[in-house]
Amino acid sequence: MKTIDGGVTTPLGWKAAGVHCGIKRERLDLAMLYSEHPTFGACAYTQNRMRAAPIEFMIKQEVTNPQAFVINSGNANAITGEQGLKDARTMVELTAKALGIDESLVGVASTGIIGRRLPMEKISAGIQEASKELSRGREADHRAAMAILTTDKVIKEAAVQITLEDGTKITIAGMAKGSGMISPSMKVQHATTLSFVTTDAVLTRSPEMRWQEAIDNSFNVINVDGDQSTNDISVFMANGAAGGPPVDDNPIFWKGVDKVVRSLAKQVVTDGEGATKLIELKVIGAKDDAEARKAGRWIISSSLVKTAVFGADPNFGRILAALGNSGSTYDIDNVRLTLGTGERAVVLFDQGVPQIEPCSEGEVAARKLLSKKRIVMTLDLGVGQGQAEAWGCDLSYEYVKINAEYTS
Amino acid sequence: MKTIDGGVTTPLGWKAAGVHCGIKRERLDLAMLYSEHPTFGACAYTQNRMRAAPIEFMIKQEVTNPQAFVINSGNANAITGEQGLKDARTMVELTAKALGIDESLVGVASTGIIGRRLPMEKISAGIQEASKELSRGREADHRAAMAILTTDKVIKEAAVQITLEDGTKITIAGMAKGSGMISPSMKVQHATTLSFVTTDAVLTRSPEMRWQEAIDNSFNVINVDGDQSTNDISVFMANGAAGGPPVDDNPIFWKGVDKVVRSLAKQVVTDGEGATKLIELKVIGAKDDAEARKAGRWIISSSLVKTAVFGADPNFGRILAALGNSGSTYDIDNVRLTLGTGERAVVLFDQGVPQIEPCSEGEVAARKLLSKKRIVMTLDLGVGQGQAEAWGCDLSYEYVKINAEYTS
Repeated sequence: MKTIDGGVTTPLGWKAAGVHCGIKRERLDLAMLYSEHPTFGACAYTQNRMRAAPIEFMIKQEVTNPQAFVINSGNANAITGEQGLKDARTMVELTAKALGIDESLVGVASTGIIGRRLPMEKISAGIQEASKELSRGREADHRAAMAILTTDKVIKEAAVQITLEDGTKITIAGMAKGSGMISPSMKVQHATTLSFVTTDAVLTRSPEMRWQEAIDNSFNVINVDGDQSTNDISVFMANGAAGGPPVDDNPIFWKGVDKVVRSLAKQVVTDGEGATKLIELKVIGAKDDAEARKAGRWIISSSLVKTAVFGADPNFGRILAALGNSGSTYDIDNVRLTLGTGERAVVLFDQGVPQIEPCSEGEVAARKLLSKKRIVMTLDLGVGQGQAEAWGCDLSYEYVKINAEYTS
Repeated sequence: MKTIDGGVTTPLGWKAAGVHCGIKRERLDLAMLYSEHPTFGACAYTQNRMRAAPIEFMIKQEVTNPQAFVINSGNANAITGEQGLKDARTMVELTAKALGIDESLVGVASTGIIGRRLPMEKISAGIQEASKELSRGREADHRAAMAILTTDKVIKEAAVQITLEDGTKITIAGMAKGSGMISPSMKVQHATTLSFVTTDAVLTRSPEMRWQEAIDNSFNVINVDGDQSTNDISVFMANGAAGGPPVDDNPIFWKGVDKVVRSLAKQVVTDGEGATKLIELKVIGAKDDAEARKAGRWIISSSLVKTAVFGADPNFGRILAALGNSGSTYDIDNVRLTLGTGERAVVLFDQGVPQIEPCSEGEVAARKLLSKKRIVMTLDLGVGQGQAEAWGCDLSYEYVKINAEYTS
């Protein structure tokens, strides 16, 4: 398996476009994805009960094998009532017509401000334009990846190439957006981070179970601000254009998918609203994986932990206090909290006792580690074999600024 | 019932002191409360499993009727292992000895930084000093109320006076501290906000049930940052010094207690770390009170809601998104969100449809209401008769600043 420089149209048979239709003032705001061949797909949606219209539409229509996707940014089409549902349907109808495929093969997603009607005239024109601009290549990838962004600073892409045993080369690629309202907990068939993974591998049946596993170990472990969006969606689409043997049960293929979605999820959290640091927390020694996940999620969601990391402050008490609130089982006499890895690792807490004194060498070393862009922590709960990862970011002045001024 | 200017020593038979013993650099850091008479009391503690040593001590010792309390600020004595427990016990022993009362009648509480050992020599000297300075009057009230503060900007006091039917005048008074790590969920017998309510009313049995009710409608509805502390404690103590008939079942008395604790809880959230605004959310029309409470708590805890309020931004979509995440039942076609009360109220959302357009008069009016120091919102879930209040504060640059620099 090889990590390559690629995007959603790097796999064979995929085209993409990104246009500006006027929802946003200047930036690209409408993306389209299209496969020349039918696909096997899986969509995972937000578990927020206040589902946006496009999510509601997708679930009702059971769009499971999308051959095309239309995505707008700048407006979430959420909490927009019956009209919102109609607008989502119209986006699908217009896209199907422009591409000459059946409506049941078109998916729709939106992201942006909640509670405002979509400007359907602009979107209708945008769909026409995008359908004509569909093409392959890095520029098309970039334009599509740009058109789905909201407060994101950078586009998120990832791609890997795998050579199967018979020599077939397959490619898995993806794009995502994130930034704010990021605390996804997506469930297949019933996941505002948007992500789209394309591949030219051959599948012969629904990849839903595998896709759920991939999401549970990537997007579902990240958290920017604890607010699960009304619009989260995570889409996987395989069009078989590469030929070769089916990969339904090929572990190397799914490892490739994992690599792509984990890369995208980390990019989302690294570019979280106002984020200056990526926090990678590994919880080990938990009663089971679920408890490890719960503890990890609780800790990286804590405003006090996040601000301490922003301030490069080794205030481990906040981490343990968050653990106490998580409800996960731990044995304080066996709890061990380590900052960093390898030789430079600093143990902050062990066997019931704090390991660094104020103004000590240990504290200085800890502050140094916390000043880096990537903070790695390992928390051993000391009771079992369960483990999980949780990826978060710090809470900065910039986060407050962005969110105090979002609609204005 | 009459609201009066008073503090913990306004009820008869109560004395207090606040001294500087050197845990903090300059400010008062050790408070003592003492009743000249035995008391009936109730203590509620944090439900965070990572309980601080003083909380652990109190629960183990079952100090239910404290006649005296010793409280230090600047150090939480939390996550300090066996030594921490010994230190908490020593604080109780020293206080009991200095006051000449039994150890079983002395309560202990701590607040401040987590994970550091208490400076016991300083505390020991402080206890001696405080026990000598115990006195009645507004200065003693203020010094005690000051000595329990951490990042709080102002002291929190409240007092009411009630004349019973037989003419007996009783007084209920309290002090509290709050500021950060405020998301209490205290349970009697098993509840960093600290609060102490004193009264000279006569009780004849344990007030625990009533005290739980009082806390559930005051401290347990507030939230500053979603992090429940390791050290929350809420104490009620009645010494009977006023004489007159027992008030165990006197609704007016408990209304007085409610008034004091609700005032204290609001003061805590108003002075929350970095808070510039108080958010008073009333959730009505819920399936039951518990669901109303859950929805309210989820909404006032949302970073996106809090930053929007800080920015005076009527981004109601974030409120509804938080409702969607709460898991509480609602009927979107009957959901109604109102900002403000009376003639100037602005309906933001009603019957499935947003009620204000960008740049409309309604939006301007909403921004105006959101620019005030006190934001009142009513959210009708449209499904039943359940209701609850939730009090929170906005999330400002100052919150980030305070918490990025707390230990340094």
